[in-house]
Amino acid sequence: MVQAVVFDAYGTLFNVQSVAIACDKEYPGNGEIISRIWRQKQLEYTWLRPLMNRYVGFDRVNRDGLRFALRQLRLSFDEALVEELANTYLTLPPHHEVPKGLRRMTQLRRFILSNGTEEMLTKLVQNNHLEGDFEGILSADGVLTYKPDPAVYTLAVSAAKLPKEDILFVSSNGWDVAGAKSYGFTVAWVNRKGSAPEELDVVPDYEVRDLVELTNIINS
Amino acid sequence: MVQAVVFDAYGTLFNVQSVAIACDKEYPGNGEIISRIWRQKQLEYTWLRPLMNRYVGFDRVNRDGLRFALRQLRLSFDEALVEELANTYLTLPPHHEVPKGLRRMTQLRRFILSNGTEEMLTKLVQNNHLEGDFEGILSADGVLTYKPDPAVYTLAVSAAKLPKEDILFVSSNGWDVAGAKSYGFTVAWVNRKGSAPEELDVVPDYEVRDLVELTNIINS
Repeated sequence: MVQAVVFDAYGTLFNVQSVAIACDKEYPGNGEIISRIWRQKQLEYTWLRPLMNRYVGFDRVNRDGLRFALRQLRLSFDEALVEELANTYLTLPPHHEVPKGLRRMTQLRRFILSNGTEEMLTKLVQNNHLEGDFEGILSADGVLTYKPDPAVYTLAVSAAKLPKEDILFVSSNGWDVAGAKSYGFTVAWVNRKGSAPEELDVVPDYEVRDLVELTNIINS
Repeated sequence: MVQAVVFDAYGTLFNVQSVAIACDKEYPGNGEIISRIWRQKQLEYTWLRPLMNRYVGFDRVNRDGLRFALRQLRLSFDEALVEELANTYLTLPPHHEVPKGLRRMTQLRRFILSNGTEEMLTKLVQNNHLEGDFEGILSADGVLTYKPDPAVYTLAVSAAKLPKEDILFVSSNGWDVAGAKSYGFTVAWVNRKGSAPEELDVVPDYEVRDLVELTNIINS
């Protein structure tokens, strides 16, 4: 029986594609490609660094992914610009249906569990006036590794003090869905783009187009 | 003083882009995009699976990456076709300058260290008639994890019985270069495409365009 919902942040509650607009202002015509490479590298570094035993916080990984993208595209930049663009991650807007979705699951305890640092996540939630919507904001930084390392998912069990299967983990990221299901959560995949499932031997319990569709399942 | 050279296989000695031709025969016009997604997912799964504690061999990871690519592109397939396309990894051709490069470093002990299974690597080397060029073929499968996990690089130290810094590790993959340098090898990056370096806090000792350029440094 699901008693708490744990949400991934980047891409799930908040729209990371919005950084393309900020990038496009600085580098007209290149916003989409910058933001795509940036996001891809940011993810790759979160997987590579724990394997290499070289953990650094997501604030660093985020800037590193951006620097790689700009260098790969041979675009000039200075550190002030990196800072400015990286800070767009503090003001990402929610996906449009998220406020409505959250209002429809107030009967359940709600948490965020993200690779972002506590400071990044707190600012992001505050800037969106969503502080009241979550019982806790949990950061992978607390265990110095990144999802899908089981140590990160354990943070939610410790915070909610519930059995894994009574926690509904919600993510739009296929690899995060696989990691969470492999860990033992009940899992919902918010597959907004109609992506193919990751071939990682685990399937989510639910696949939905958005959070409002998920609330129809929870409340049925 | 470098006494042995350890080569990555896929992308470094052997040209993985050649699978695009086989894919294009089956799916005309889609060969490039299939091989690009296939390779990307193959790599992602080698990083995600150790983090998830769900290691499977590279023969499986290779097929899984291909299946994801075909499903993502909504291309129909059966398992016989997956098998046929996956087997192109057993007959990848060397990059064009590789035979000449290897002939110019016969004074050094030479090894392959790869994520591929022992069977995949042995067949690949045999199909290219390169058995005589390597003292040993080392597979990550021996330690049930993938590069850049330090446990994999340790296989080369155990086989060569040399200090890390006396081993020159050669890879075209930026993340592998970072992992090998972080581990402690002397490292050369074969940067054929002029890519930006990965932002992982470590830089290789040498950066070259191809293996022949590397032999100019070794022999100088």
